[in-house]
Amino acid sequence: MINVGIVGATGYAGEELIDILLRHPDVKIVNLSAKIDKPQNISEIFPKIKGRIALVCQQPDIKEIISKCDLAFLALPHTVSMEIAPKLLSAGKKVIDLSADYRLKDTKIYTQFYKTKHQDKINLSKAVYGLPELYRTKIKVAQLIANPGCYPTAGILALAPLVAFNLVDLGTIIIDAKSGVTGAGKKVAEDFLFSEINDDFKAYKVDIHQHAPEINQELSKLADKRINITFVPHLLPLNRGILETVYVKRIQSPKSKIKNLVSLYKKFYKKEPFIRIRDEGDFPKIKDVVHTNFCDIGIKDSGDTIIIIAAIDNLLKGASGQAVQNMNIMYKFPEYTALL
Amino acid sequence: MINVGIVGATGYAGEELIDILLRHPDVKIVNLSAKIDKPQNISEIFPKIKGRIALVCQQPDIKEIISKCDLAFLALPHTVSMEIAPKLLSAGKKVIDLSADYRLKDTKIYTQFYKTKHQDKINLSKAVYGLPELYRTKIKVAQLIANPGCYPTAGILALAPLVAFNLVDLGTIIIDAKSGVTGAGKKVAEDFLFSEINDDFKAYKVDIHQHAPEINQELSKLADKRINITFVPHLLPLNRGILETVYVKRIQSPKSKIKNLVSLYKKFYKKEPFIRIRDEGDFPKIKDVVHTNFCDIGIKDSGDTIIIIAAIDNLLKGASGQAVQNMNIMYKFPEYTALL
Amino acid sequence: MINVGIVGATGYAGEELIDILLRHPDVKIVNLSAKIDKPQNISEIFPKIKGRIALVCQQPDIKEIISKCDLAFLALPHTVSMEIAPKLLSAGKKVIDLSADYRLKDTKIYTQFYKTKHQDKINLSKAVYGLPELYRTKIKVAQLIANPGCYPTAGILALAPLVAFNLVDLGTIIIDAKSGVTGAGKKVAEDFLFSEINDDFKAYKVDIHQHAPEINQELSKLADKRINITFVPHLLPLNRGILETVYVKRIQSPKSKIKNLVSLYKKFYKKEPFIRIRDEGDFPKIKDVVHTNFCDIGIKDSGDTIIIIAAIDNLLKGASGQAVQNMNIMYKFPEYTALL
Amino acid sequence: MINVGIVGATGYAGEELIDILLRHPDVKIVNLSAKIDKPQNISEIFPKIKGRIALVCQQPDIKEIISKCDLAFLALPHTVSMEIAPKLLSAGKKVIDLSADYRLKDTKIYTQFYKTKHQDKINLSKAVYGLPELYRTKIKVAQLIANPGCYPTAGILALAPLVAFNLVDLGTIIIDAKSGVTGAGKKVAEDFLFSEINDDFKAYKVDIHQHAPEINQELSKLADKRINITFVPHLLPLNRGILETVYVKRIQSPKSKIKNLVSLYKKFYKKEPFIRIRDEGDFPKIKDVVHTNFCDIGIKDSGDTIIIIAAIDNLLKGASGQAVQNMNIMYKFPEYTALL
Repeated sequence: MINVGIVGATGYAGEELIDILLRHPDVKIVNLSAKIDKPQNISEIFPKIKGRIALVCQQPDIKEIISKCDLAFLALPHTVSMEIAPKLLSAGKKVIDLSADYRLKDTKIYTQFYKTKHQDKINLSKAVYGLPELYRTKIKVAQLIANPGCYPTAGILALAPLVAFNLVDLGTIIIDAKSGVTGAGKKVAEDFLFSEINDDFKAYKVDIHQHAPEINQELSKLADKRINITFVPHLLPLNRGILETVYVKRIQSPKSKIKNLVSLYKKFYKKEPFIRIRDEGDFPKIKDVVHTNFCDIGIKDSGDTIIIIAAIDNLLKGASGQAVQNMNIMYKFPEYTALL
Repeated sequence: MINVGIVGATGYAGEELIDILLRHPDVKIVNLSAKIDKPQNISEIFPKIKGRIALVCQQPDIKEIISKCDLAFLALPHTVSMEIAPKLLSAGKKVIDLSADYRLKDTKIYTQFYKTKHQDKINLSKAVYGLPELYRTKIKVAQLIANPGCYPTAGILALAPLVAFNLVDLGTIIIDAKSGVTGAGKKVAEDFLFSEINDDFKAYKVDIHQHAPEINQELSKLADKRINITFVPHLLPLNRGILETVYVKRIQSPKSKIKNLVSLYKKFYKKEPFIRIRDEGDFPKIKDVVHTNFCDIGIKDSGDTIIIIAAIDNLLKGASGQAVQNMNIMYKFPEYTALL
Repeated sequence: MINVGIVGATGYAGEELIDILLRHPDVKIVNLSAKIDKPQNISEIFPKIKGRIALVCQQPDIKEIISKCDLAFLALPHTVSMEIAPKLLSAGKKVIDLSADYRLKDTKIYTQFYKTKHQDKINLSKAVYGLPELYRTKIKVAQLIANPGCYPTAGILALAPLVAFNLVDLGTIIIDAKSGVTGAGKKVAEDFLFSEINDDFKAYKVDIHQHAPEINQELSKLADKRINITFVPHLLPLNRGILETVYVKRIQSPKSKIKNLVSLYKKFYKKEPFIRIRDEGDFPKIKDVVHTNFCDIGIKDSGDTIIIIAAIDNLLKGASGQAVQNMNIMYKFPEYTALL
Repeated sequence: MINVGIVGATGYAGEELIDILLRHPDVKIVNLSAKIDKPQNISEIFPKIKGRIALVCQQPDIKEIISKCDLAFLALPHTVSMEIAPKLLSAGKKVIDLSADYRLKDTKIYTQFYKTKHQDKINLSKAVYGLPELYRTKIKVAQLIANPGCYPTAGILALAPLVAFNLVDLGTIIIDAKSGVTGAGKKVAEDFLFSEINDDFKAYKVDIHQHAPEINQELSKLADKRINITFVPHLLPLNRGILETVYVKRIQSPKSKIKNLVSLYKKFYKKEPFIRIRDEGDFPKIKDVVHTNFCDIGIKDSGDTIIIIAAIDNLLKGASGQAVQNMNIMYKFPEYTALL
């Protein structure tokens, strides 16, 4: 049994973490904090969980977190995590950071996209990118996990087998991504009003979204070559779920003669508890993965062009579910505990 | 051809007024204003109407409105209208006010519900409540119209025949009202975020909503007796439309033997261009009236209890459509002009 | 550990039962059946649960169900359950029936509302109405549970304290109910198309819905007096959740002087694991209960009129969750197992 | 004043045609027909238009249509139009066909995608593809218009300037299309139930949709070279609207040095009343065009890759609005009549 704290408990990712961890037999939530005006019982903030937990949420108190917790989840806005994480790490605590602060190894790119200087390069260099399908071995022994972004999770998982086996023209990768609104966090702004989003659909940050460099970094590592994808995110009129439609051109090489891409994907992800590869001609929809930690992937091989469609729940496999999956790996709990 | 201005052009009611008036053959929009940071072409604010109008929206300039307009629509927040209306009226302009400022004749009740003192009792006493089905004759010669609230429009129209004919126990009136989110105006608050309202439904201001006294005032006038209804509004996860389910007990009197309530309603509203009474056993839904100026009404006579269901588009018959209907009456344009 | 079967596994209630029971430590799903063309793995029918269960769903085979199961859930259309239940019961199996077949004790009323003769009066007389808050003692020893309807669950729980304490005029009860579309089951008809329901809201079966007699039966038992409520259901543009707004008049009697209704409700439901009473002035919304087995209740005491608002998830507390709660009671598992 | 009939009046496109034509000062609807069980007043079928039209809709009677109408709109399923159109045409009537029957000049491709032989090759060869932006001159004198599909309208308009000026690598065109559900017509099937589509999003007919050959045909004509696009449609949880995100690679040639693509588009569509090109960095959303006949286009020039985003209302510019636009051109009515 481990004791955990959640810093940033009042956002969507925080709410989801509480929900999952309350079903986890080996975990006790002992501290909840957030930037709030006055201490408040978490069940007043989220009436939905009343009767399941009665813990007061308060301003983050680092000392208290250190004294009470083995592990802290940081469900904080970008740039806030790197103020808090170093203190917890230096006290020997484990940290799973759901923000972007420890994801991008190149701090110049971080600054370009997040408009601030990186404050904690030492821990950045030690942070493990928490995508279990690629980094399980490192996650086992990590102290600091940079939990992946929602779009990158689906995008990297969709492309990893093709890139790893060098089957595609790396200059042609296009990700047309569609996300529900919780992907953007709980933003109180006119653009996020019900009356604006209901019955609407739009692209945003066209080819300038901050998740593109994260995908580029990981795919480049896999390819051992610098990759620049084209990435266009869109906003769906629904709360949760991401579907990414990925387009790539096949490379003309002997290796590219691998006949059955569906088989290739099934092999690549054979032992993964949360990856489900669809049979030929079958494609996932958001409904199939929402409220689950699964990433479902369908592949269409049109000869010259390959189309991959991947779906996840942005709050689970794209955030809090993956964070708990990482925790399970770190503590050698069965990886699917509380996630099925 | 008349020249009109819209003060408060950037809200939902303003947008709808522009859309209707651009289709009106006898009206020219000559002035658009709102509380905005800097002058901006209205088609930048509403990209949807680009190509139909190119007018700059600016801070309200009373002198300019007076010099250019015959009539001004005030699509303003409550309490702001009564600052502007007197100036326009004293310059001889006609005013159709979509706020609540000139609806409640009793200023004590106004203060109780709108948390401010009334500043313009003189014009208040002259204002005509702009429900054509009850006040058409007065509207024809009015200078100032208090355009009804959205809930009151549907509620009063649903009950007027029964109350006018003294058929029901006035102490038993219950209105269970459901509205789409634009009914509340363009409020940037957490409660109105897409992620909060999508897939949700709730009651709010339970029996304390500010539209109850407006309904009470009008029904009491009809009954010539003081009425206090029970009124519970609910928020629907859709943009436009109101449906009200009204419950009343029949009075036990000779008059109450009127057999066919559907016929009674059809007679009562026989000449009304925008009231459609459903046949026995048939009830309106929001879909039937949305994007129209119609109020559809269905009646179920269960003997002791009578159930009336009324539906309108809150932005049209419940606001801007009714405002234009009032303008048409004031200027003797065919009443349905630009509204069919 | 008990072995259970689900007859009617391919509908909404069936899907939900599978999801809950897969998380239940004391239950093994051993048989899935439904009216289907050919046997099919359940994870092909519901791709969402792939990786969690791999059981073939086939046409119901009573012998097999009897040989394999201790308990069967019947998630069948009305009138089909009473063909299957007797066979299972006579073989000594326990049955939880989610249809309406064993709910109405008066078979004349059953025939009136379900347009068919009742075929199994013997078991009907033994069936226990599965609302734990009223019948827990009987449920413990029951062989056949008539799992309550979704609207009745919320409606009865909302009214039980007032009726039990004889506080209200029983002739004035009005239930204005609103439900998400899964309440009607998986009906392939034009009325249930996305394009028809999205952005729409309507009443249906106005004061003639088959759940009214079920509510009448249970409230009459509580009051020891025949009650006829007014019941108007409406269809919400969302998948799951019911919210009922209930209106009653206070009786003018000494007992009615009970001052604090909120306290009364809290006492009445003190030991109930799935009832949450809101504090004064606070009301539940669908979002608070969806994906949970809770019933949340808020009360507004306006003197003469009392307003009660109750919310449940129609597929959980209104169907499959309550069915599992009943199973937990029957087998002395902690009542909340797999339901929190 | 012309007399028109609508064959297939009870579908989405038919309903929309009625709504538009009722606002058209030069048109009288004189005949409404559809495959229906018994004649029915159209306002019973569509309660929304009650009070605006009272015409009985009946089984199509070709003789009557010929005797009464100057022009017939065919809003029929594919393959039904080509049974009816020849009869009307040989009687000298004008026909605007909203089905796919007269769009594809190559009948082999027609057969491949619509699973039936073409029955009317003579009229097919004379039919004019009704995209005014490309074929206005021919439309003016046409007797038979093949009204374009919804996806092709947005896709062709998005790509026409680039293809016409030979700026892009024709082998790299990808259209990632997203449509509201009315795009599929009024299909009563489980896939189109509210509970299936609400909160969901999915791709369908991945790279095998019947609109791809229509886009290929028109772009190939423009390029004077055979083109095969990659086309993946997706289903949005909303009623109306299409947004297409188009990806192409620039060709490396002198012409490709054209600096400002936004200017190029603005020039190309300068005189078009229904095309609106967004300024640099600004992109359309579905909300901007829904309930209008506009096609809004935004362009992102990322150097090597060009991204074009186009939005239309699938029932207006993608169907009935464009049909009326074609009618206006054929009869020399101002092109925007009844469409603004």
